[in-house]
Amino acid sequence: MLGCGNVGTEVARILLKDADSLAARTGARLDLVGIAVRNLDAPRSADIPRELLTTDAESLVKNADLVIELLGGIEPARSLIMLAIEHNACVVSGNKALLASDGPRLYELADAKGVQLSYEAAVAGAIPILRPIRDSLAGDKITRVLGIVNGTTNYILDQMDSTGADFNSALAEAQRLGYAEADPTADVEGRDAAAKAAILASLSFHSSFSLDDAYCEGISSITASDIEAAREAGLVIKLLAIAEKVTATDGAQDGVSVRVHPTLLPREHPLAAVRGAFNAVFVESEYAGELMFYGRGAGGTPTAAAVLGDLVSAARRIVLGGPGRTETTAGRVPVLSIDAVQTSYCIGLEVADESGVLARIAQIFATQGVSIETMRQTIHPADDQDQQQQYAELRIVTHRAAESALAATVAQIRDLDVTTAVTSVLRVEGV
Amino acid sequence: MLGCGNVGTEVARILLKDADSLAARTGARLDLVGIAVRNLDAPRSADIPRELLTTDAESLVKNADLVIELLGGIEPARSLIMLAIEHNACVVSGNKALLASDGPRLYELADAKGVQLSYEAAVAGAIPILRPIRDSLAGDKITRVLGIVNGTTNYILDQMDSTGADFNSALAEAQRLGYAEADPTADVEGRDAAAKAAILASLSFHSSFSLDDAYCEGISSITASDIEAAREAGLVIKLLAIAEKVTATDGAQDGVSVRVHPTLLPREHPLAAVRGAFNAVFVESEYAGELMFYGRGAGGTPTAAAVLGDLVSAARRIVLGGPGRTETTAGRVPVLSIDAVQTSYCIGLEVADESGVLARIAQIFATQGVSIETMRQTIHPADDQDQQQQYAELRIVTHRAAESALAATVAQIRDLDVTTAVTSVLRVEGV
Repeated sequence: MLGCGNVGTEVARILLKDADSLAARTGARLDLVGIAVRNLDAPRSADIPRELLTTDAESLVKNADLVIELLGGIEPARSLIMLAIEHNACVVSGNKALLASDGPRLYELADAKGVQLSYEAAVAGAIPILRPIRDSLAGDKITRVLGIVNGTTNYILDQMDSTGADFNSALAEAQRLGYAEADPTADVEGRDAAAKAAILASLSFHSSFSLDDAYCEGISSITASDIEAAREAGLVIKLLAIAEKVTATDGAQDGVSVRVHPTLLPREHPLAAVRGAFNAVFVESEYAGELMFYGRGAGGTPTAAAVLGDLVSAARRIVLGGPGRTETTAGRVPVLSIDAVQTSYCIGLEVADESGVLARIAQIFATQGVSIETMRQTIHPADDQDQQQQYAELRIVTHRAAESALAATVAQIRDLDVTTAVTSVLRVEGV
Repeated sequence: MLGCGNVGTEVARILLKDADSLAARTGARLDLVGIAVRNLDAPRSADIPRELLTTDAESLVKNADLVIELLGGIEPARSLIMLAIEHNACVVSGNKALLASDGPRLYELADAKGVQLSYEAAVAGAIPILRPIRDSLAGDKITRVLGIVNGTTNYILDQMDSTGADFNSALAEAQRLGYAEADPTADVEGRDAAAKAAILASLSFHSSFSLDDAYCEGISSITASDIEAAREAGLVIKLLAIAEKVTATDGAQDGVSVRVHPTLLPREHPLAAVRGAFNAVFVESEYAGELMFYGRGAGGTPTAAAVLGDLVSAARRIVLGGPGRTETTAGRVPVLSIDAVQTSYCIGLEVADESGVLARIAQIFATQGVSIETMRQTIHPADDQDQQQQYAELRIVTHRAAESALAATVAQIRDLDVTTAVTSVLRVEGV
């Protein structure tokens, strides 16, 4: 095992404690021969036998049948995984950053050597999602994956939704409870989810996608009034990691869109019921239809469960013989930019309450070829303190249209002299 | 392929249509060499090439690498699967009745021959649930499985819940829409769910359980007023297939309970949101915590998706070499009768509105060692037509207690002279 943090400690504890039942499941005993750490003297759980610790990761890797990589980050994790594969070890990793950047290269290396590289723990923690996509849906054609794959942001959005809190106080509460880190940027700005979106896209569409292919928008600009307006419309805002097959309609290129952004979902959508720090991945496929996989997305023990599942599977393969190849990322499907995607928007506006304003706005939509599904207007009377004049608040939900057309529509509306503010622009899915 | 009904027709259609993409996923072409049917001249979809049809199932089985069994029922399915295994073919089956009765014997046979026997389609249709339990959770310890595994009964209960319909009209609506068969007995009385409960229990607890091990209670006695009372209490009634590890507390035997019965669940439980004819399986395990798998439980195309996933996996094994053993049902865990299970009850009563009645009822609970969590009393005034005297309606929710103690409590209350009727006795989970 490489690394002995929160997840590693749990993996080691269970490997030692459950040695007999794991041997029964596997057909051979799993001997934890060593744990590579940077500092032998760092404070550790009493469950970790000191004699297993070593700082010589390379020697450990060269002599193991199975390597569990829980270091995180790119280096030295990448070099050590490559060394393990070269020495014919099967590798179990939970390293989403590395798999989102170098995954395809590592899978190829593992295939060439006939060893297994598995990484269930890298996406959605304890939830078995990668293996079902890879194996159970191997005869199907996935069309879209929508995932709540970041517990921090789901906790914050759920807290805002259920208590009316604003973003900053929900974040503070998440930090107090340990659901958010002191520096929450990677979670809150969607980068953690984007790495997972790239991994999900690679498996779902049998091609190679990296973090750089993902469009990424976080939740820090979501306001309490966005949440409130969504609720009034029977919707909920979730940060979704989306991997979607896009079939071109008019001569454009077919491809895959990989993206992360706050998304409005109908309250009756199965993902809308995913509360707190839980994760869920909703898969749409041609034959199976709609599937959802739900569970704990983080935490030492749940993540260790995913590592152990991979470990037992890899060990069974070694015991029974037979090579490990099960990946099929050989294709080269083009990545589409966010501009090529068809989505629907919910746009919040404040405009002057003058005659002709609605017509001017509707005209902009029509010119861009964006069809309006619903438009709701609320008139706010003049107010002595904040507001000099009576004004109108508009909430417009569009039909699906190209992102580029929607962006152009919003830009033109923003430039209108009668537009006081564009208060929110959110994408809608699941309607 | 054996059988060419609804699911078989879809499997054949996809195998022929998607031959290229399946070859890419598998590493070899999957040639559908024949389809055994009883009657060559029965009316069939135009997607089925007539030259593939044969009535000689035995010859077909003896010459195939992979056998897909979609006949249903015990014979000739069992003999043909055994013949296939003897001839070293991997078998994919969707036959829940056979697997619930003869599964363990068939797994042993397949293990001995080193071929794969897989049957994802037998439980919860398109939902990948058996493979995740078998592989992804192989390093974990499942403690309980709660499944909505019968779409007919979930549709009926959901319809009763959302429209206030009574059982008979909800059943009629389900029949009109094709969600219930003309003879709905096997679904409505829980026998279909019980077969799936036995299969889930075998995989989850690495032991052999059959349909005969399952306690089974259907939904035909659920009334509109049961549903209404549940709603008022923030609960919903679902027919659950339950497989649960039971640790004895006082010298009794540890074991597993396999059962199907209508169950009250809190509305915020993830299973409560499973609407219409959808299925979902909720898994509780020691390390992963709570997981849920959701999707379509029936229908030709979704069920075909599950068959194809198994087929591609089995074919990959054949292409890559290596034996197929992945089952571990070797243990012999005792099955506990429903009397040994701890559950909580919600009991509806009509009693005379006399002084001392509540005390007498509470005394019966106390004598049986059953602790009351909540008791709600509604007084109904005398009514000239139906009801001669004022009476009280009681709804009592208990803490967890042994089924035997609960049953004895209900029996004694029923015998009280002040008890007019025991209107409902329902088990509660997830609180």
